[in-house]
Amino acid sequence: MNGQLPAKMKAAVMTKPGTIVIEERPVPSVDANEVLVKVMAVGVCGSDVHYFENGRIGRYVVEKPLVLGHECAGIIVAAGASVTNVSLGDRVAIEPGVTCGHCQACKEGRYNLCPDVQFLATPPVDGAFVQYMKIRADMVFAIPEHLSFEAAALNEPFSVGIHAAKRCNLQPGATVAIMGMGPVGLMAVAAAKSFGASRIIVTDLEQVRLEAAKRMGATDVINVKEIDAVQRIKELTDGLGADAAWETAGNPRALQTALYSLRRGGKLVIVGLPAQDEIALNVPFIADNEIDIYGVFRYANTYPTGIKFLAGDGIDALALITDRYPLEQTQEALERAIHNKSGSLKVMVYPNEIL
Amino acid sequence: MNGQLPAKMKAAVMTKPGTIVIEERPVPSVDANEVLVKVMAVGVCGSDVHYFENGRIGRYVVEKPLVLGHECAGIIVAAGASVTNVSLGDRVAIEPGVTCGHCQACKEGRYNLCPDVQFLATPPVDGAFVQYMKIRADMVFAIPEHLSFEAAALNEPFSVGIHAAKRCNLQPGATVAIMGMGPVGLMAVAAAKSFGASRIIVTDLEQVRLEAAKRMGATDVINVKEIDAVQRIKELTDGLGADAAWETAGNPRALQTALYSLRRGGKLVIVGLPAQDEIALNVPFIADNEIDIYGVFRYANTYPTGIKFLAGDGIDALALITDRYPLEQTQEALERAIHNKSGSLKVMVYPNEIL
Amino acid sequence: MNGQLPAKMKAAVMTKPGTIVIEERPVPSVDANEVLVKVMAVGVCGSDVHYFENGRIGRYVVEKPLVLGHECAGIIVAAGASVTNVSLGDRVAIEPGVTCGHCQACKEGRYNLCPDVQFLATPPVDGAFVQYMKIRADMVFAIPEHLSFEAAALNEPFSVGIHAAKRCNLQPGATVAIMGMGPVGLMAVAAAKSFGASRIIVTDLEQVRLEAAKRMGATDVINVKEIDAVQRIKELTDGLGADAAWETAGNPRALQTALYSLRRGGKLVIVGLPAQDEIALNVPFIADNEIDIYGVFRYANTYPTGIKFLAGDGIDALALITDRYPLEQTQEALERAIHNKSGSLKVMVYPNEIL
Amino acid sequence: MNGQLPAKMKAAVMTKPGTIVIEERPVPSVDANEVLVKVMAVGVCGSDVHYFENGRIGRYVVEKPLVLGHECAGIIVAAGASVTNVSLGDRVAIEPGVTCGHCQACKEGRYNLCPDVQFLATPPVDGAFVQYMKIRADMVFAIPEHLSFEAAALNEPFSVGIHAAKRCNLQPGATVAIMGMGPVGLMAVAAAKSFGASRIIVTDLEQVRLEAAKRMGATDVINVKEIDAVQRIKELTDGLGADAAWETAGNPRALQTALYSLRRGGKLVIVGLPAQDEIALNVPFIADNEIDIYGVFRYANTYPTGIKFLAGDGIDALALITDRYPLEQTQEALERAIHNKSGSLKVMVYPNEIL
Repeated sequence: MNGQLPAKMKAAVMTKPGTIVIEERPVPSVDANEVLVKVMAVGVCGSDVHYFENGRIGRYVVEKPLVLGHECAGIIVAAGASVTNVSLGDRVAIEPGVTCGHCQACKEGRYNLCPDVQFLATPPVDGAFVQYMKIRADMVFAIPEHLSFEAAALNEPFSVGIHAAKRCNLQPGATVAIMGMGPVGLMAVAAAKSFGASRIIVTDLEQVRLEAAKRMGATDVINVKEIDAVQRIKELTDGLGADAAWETAGNPRALQTALYSLRRGGKLVIVGLPAQDEIALNVPFIADNEIDIYGVFRYANTYPTGIKFLAGDGIDALALITDRYPLEQTQEALERAIHNKSGSLKVMVYPNEIL
Repeated sequence: MNGQLPAKMKAAVMTKPGTIVIEERPVPSVDANEVLVKVMAVGVCGSDVHYFENGRIGRYVVEKPLVLGHECAGIIVAAGASVTNVSLGDRVAIEPGVTCGHCQACKEGRYNLCPDVQFLATPPVDGAFVQYMKIRADMVFAIPEHLSFEAAALNEPFSVGIHAAKRCNLQPGATVAIMGMGPVGLMAVAAAKSFGASRIIVTDLEQVRLEAAKRMGATDVINVKEIDAVQRIKELTDGLGADAAWETAGNPRALQTALYSLRRGGKLVIVGLPAQDEIALNVPFIADNEIDIYGVFRYANTYPTGIKFLAGDGIDALALITDRYPLEQTQEALERAIHNKSGSLKVMVYPNEIL
Repeated sequence: MNGQLPAKMKAAVMTKPGTIVIEERPVPSVDANEVLVKVMAVGVCGSDVHYFENGRIGRYVVEKPLVLGHECAGIIVAAGASVTNVSLGDRVAIEPGVTCGHCQACKEGRYNLCPDVQFLATPPVDGAFVQYMKIRADMVFAIPEHLSFEAAALNEPFSVGIHAAKRCNLQPGATVAIMGMGPVGLMAVAAAKSFGASRIIVTDLEQVRLEAAKRMGATDVINVKEIDAVQRIKELTDGLGADAAWETAGNPRALQTALYSLRRGGKLVIVGLPAQDEIALNVPFIADNEIDIYGVFRYANTYPTGIKFLAGDGIDALALITDRYPLEQTQEALERAIHNKSGSLKVMVYPNEIL
Repeated sequence: MNGQLPAKMKAAVMTKPGTIVIEERPVPSVDANEVLVKVMAVGVCGSDVHYFENGRIGRYVVEKPLVLGHECAGIIVAAGASVTNVSLGDRVAIEPGVTCGHCQACKEGRYNLCPDVQFLATPPVDGAFVQYMKIRADMVFAIPEHLSFEAAALNEPFSVGIHAAKRCNLQPGATVAIMGMGPVGLMAVAAAKSFGASRIIVTDLEQVRLEAAKRMGATDVINVKEIDAVQRIKELTDGLGADAAWETAGNPRALQTALYSLRRGGKLVIVGLPAQDEIALNVPFIADNEIDIYGVFRYANTYPTGIKFLAGDGIDALALITDRYPLEQTQEALERAIHNKSGSLKVMVYPNEIL
């Protein structure tokens, strides 16, 4: 059931940290349970930037040339014989973590904790800055006509927000504080809104991000350069504090702020990964107030839900996209994303054509 | 429906920190929804000792004479007109936190977070080192004939363990590590066993406590003076780590050990209240492994369950009781509890007669 | 803290089934923990109609004159000395079930199961078709300026929908089928929408109700006079079935339809009370497909959430109100509600003045 | 890593309903992710008997020769190259439902609802009445030395009980009523005990089964030939009713009894599959009392937990085994199980040697 395909394609390969080379590679062929996706849009994630700058994230070390990119969407152009969930020509969002399906974590529904996951753009697994990519068929999810490839690619960071909401069992009507309005934080705002949060209070240091947060659904914005966030959140909640607080920036200070902004019985979600290991937390505060704290590692079972929300009319995901590059300029895209403070929010790469 | 009662009774009053005076007080009369309990056994809790030594715990300051003691059981000797849950002569365990029943926390079933709770022996509310005590009738729970008053009094620290198990949704068959084998830790072992934990690994510095833990149901004991607890717990769990870890001692180092002893997706419960506020925790570890952390503040809805377990044949609560004093020696009881390291585990006071 | 109040007021009293008499009664005085509410809007509920027509609902029998009405909102005009949650002049929604706060159901957060609840307009407790009503202060919830009394009164049937959503843990993005578009069903649509349901499929026999459902947020309407609902729901869900189905009409056939419309692992919520006891359900279907079924009895902990949603911009609750009567015409209001099929949806009574 | 294996083996094949023929078949060879198990013990399940008698169960129809048997345990005698969870010589329990790992149900942790499951002894998938059987490696779970193969085989019906407990979130200390003391019911008693139920009330018509139930942990037995079960359960629970009730026999009357035996807020679990589809249930009772009803279809994520419990000292699973047959007498074993009322509880088949 495969259409006419080229034999060769372009791939943006990080040959060493800081250097992207455009290579010609064979277009992959698919196994019975795989699909081939013509990649139409790829978001640049903070982890891509991190590998590009440092060549490693924690225990994951880039030891040979690596294709980056894992926030992606495209078109099904070939499918193995046993594929049934999508058809040729389907437009799809791609979930980038291929899990084993058979370990205890997978069987219990927490497949994001699968020890054998193959995650795109995590060494040694190549990612999505290519024209064609094969992947196991259950990792692709058809999207409706009116949902753009770019918005579908953003289902990946959106999934982190959805997972945060599910981890803390965010209740409709809740008040949630979200710390850090980078792309993950901004998509977390969209997730909180989709989950029916009545009040979404956000913090950041940059006004442009706070403005973007308002577009995503934030009801109250706090510039922490000027305002004490804990005090302000208390004021906004009749002195009680927020029902939930999500730290998305990996900032130790923001994490402490998030904790103190909670009401008794409130829930802290750790989304952002701090650069340092040890962070001082007020443990008596956690105990006295029966705080719950939930770590977040990627996401599970979020793609169908995310697509529904993105395809609805409540989220303007495209508003986050500030910079667009063709595949040939993947190097520039990554460099732009490093310095993404001057008005840049989300940088996109288009492996086949700029949409 | 009240029997013949004396007009006066003895009360052990802390007139100032470090000093207990036996006073004569009127036996209280009860309102329509209250009962009068002849107090038969009272456990000395760490918080009693803390008030006795320091005159305060955090924001709770002893500003006038206070009766300590809140782990208690006794006999119903008088009951108000509208009391229906117990009858004269019933032997009862007493839940010491009288909550309002009408605030949001109460209505949501988390009454331990009620801001208006009146908790025995927490200033300015007098406690149980008295011969007779009145309390709202819904705070007393009838116990079966064969359950001793002393074991029923221990339903209070046992409740903390039950609440810990409920907070982390401890699953039957789970492996739980419990740090700190003071009375709360020891009763937490009993709670974990009652909840069907298959493996209960405990840590402490003192061999006598580890031996007591075995009697309560610990399957593996680790003396942290000699053995690295994290390494040992990993060995005992095929390298995976524990499903849950409860810190009961308020020891920062033990809390860090508890965290590191967890498997991916594991759950940390903070039971013990550390003396210091800020404790360094490995936040990337929490995020990467999707750890849940649950603060524990007292307990809610544990008394009926606790009585069932204590009345069953799985728990030898009396094995914890090492020291027994009459009400007149409450001062000695508290002093003994301060120095409870040389073989002393639980100190009991008997306001009416030693059982 | 009480304003100038009249000594007498009007009350619409059901002296016997089918007969409402306007009586003059003293304006109640309040205890320390009570408030007096000037009642501004009261919705006529199916249970009011049922008592009016039949004089009983199941074990609840009207044995003496009774004031009906329990969906209500008003203004605080007097407050007891210990009231802190509202002030004179506050506009409030009134939760009509005064629960004890001290039984096991209350303590566990399921206060709707309190055996001692005093529920407005359930014999022998008088209801809200009066000019002034006293109630325990924790039963009133301040509403914002821009929320009308009528919409606030509808927080009562809305609460049933919110509770249905909570009972089945309705997930954002879910597909829910709701059977029966009477006022409860229509408010249930609003609840499903507020909880982030992506698809809300509704059924009824009357086109006017299906049109109203669209205004409340239904995405697909099925007139079961013309269309087989199970087949249609399967078509709308790729052959899988709905994630949840709520029966709100008490119609046995609709309940069976609701069951068969579910996907494997789907959840059936029983909101409507059928007239007959025994209804045939396909038990092998329930087992094979691991269906959950949840009975709904009133609601708990819904008022604050409901007010937030009603005060937001997603719900046009006033669109449900088709008929308005002054207190003097309560008899006509009830008679209108009996025959509420010809375009009538929600009938309101205004004890003080028509808004 | 494979030992010396025979080329041929014996298989007990149902050539048509009612007829088992012993055939010689090649010993299977394994793929990289499979293991070969020397089958040591197989329990005869009600579904085996059903296929043997009727040739079908609902939509599952026996259309060609079929090997029955799915409650099984054995020894690993060969393993594919990528197998890591077990080694040659390991004694294992075998989970009989091989699920896809990649559908939505699998990914959400409810793999028992996988539409593509290959379940042993469910047409057209052959089962365990063979000397050697291959299966995907993640379906086998090592058991400790002291756990017999027979008890390990009973982990299958035990899993149904564990799943019932998990479905209704059975709380430690709960009172559960279990209807029907066939093998599934008896193992459900063991599950309830393992989950910490304080009171386990069981019903059956036969005294021998009620006696067996006591050995498994039942605290109260009711012979429904003599005693009204609902009335008796109310008496045993202070008039309140049970926290949970599990129907395991597929008996409509028992299901109704189970429902009526519940307290308000109680939970009904449907384990048994009735022969008829439509069963009359009291729907107003379900709504008024906010009953939860949970269908049970097989189980998920129960094997490790089950093994832990069976390997502990609380369950005497072997006490259920009343009849033992070699593979050659599989026909007799099935016929014995048909008439399993005269003292027979669990019939076992030993494909290699009687243990």
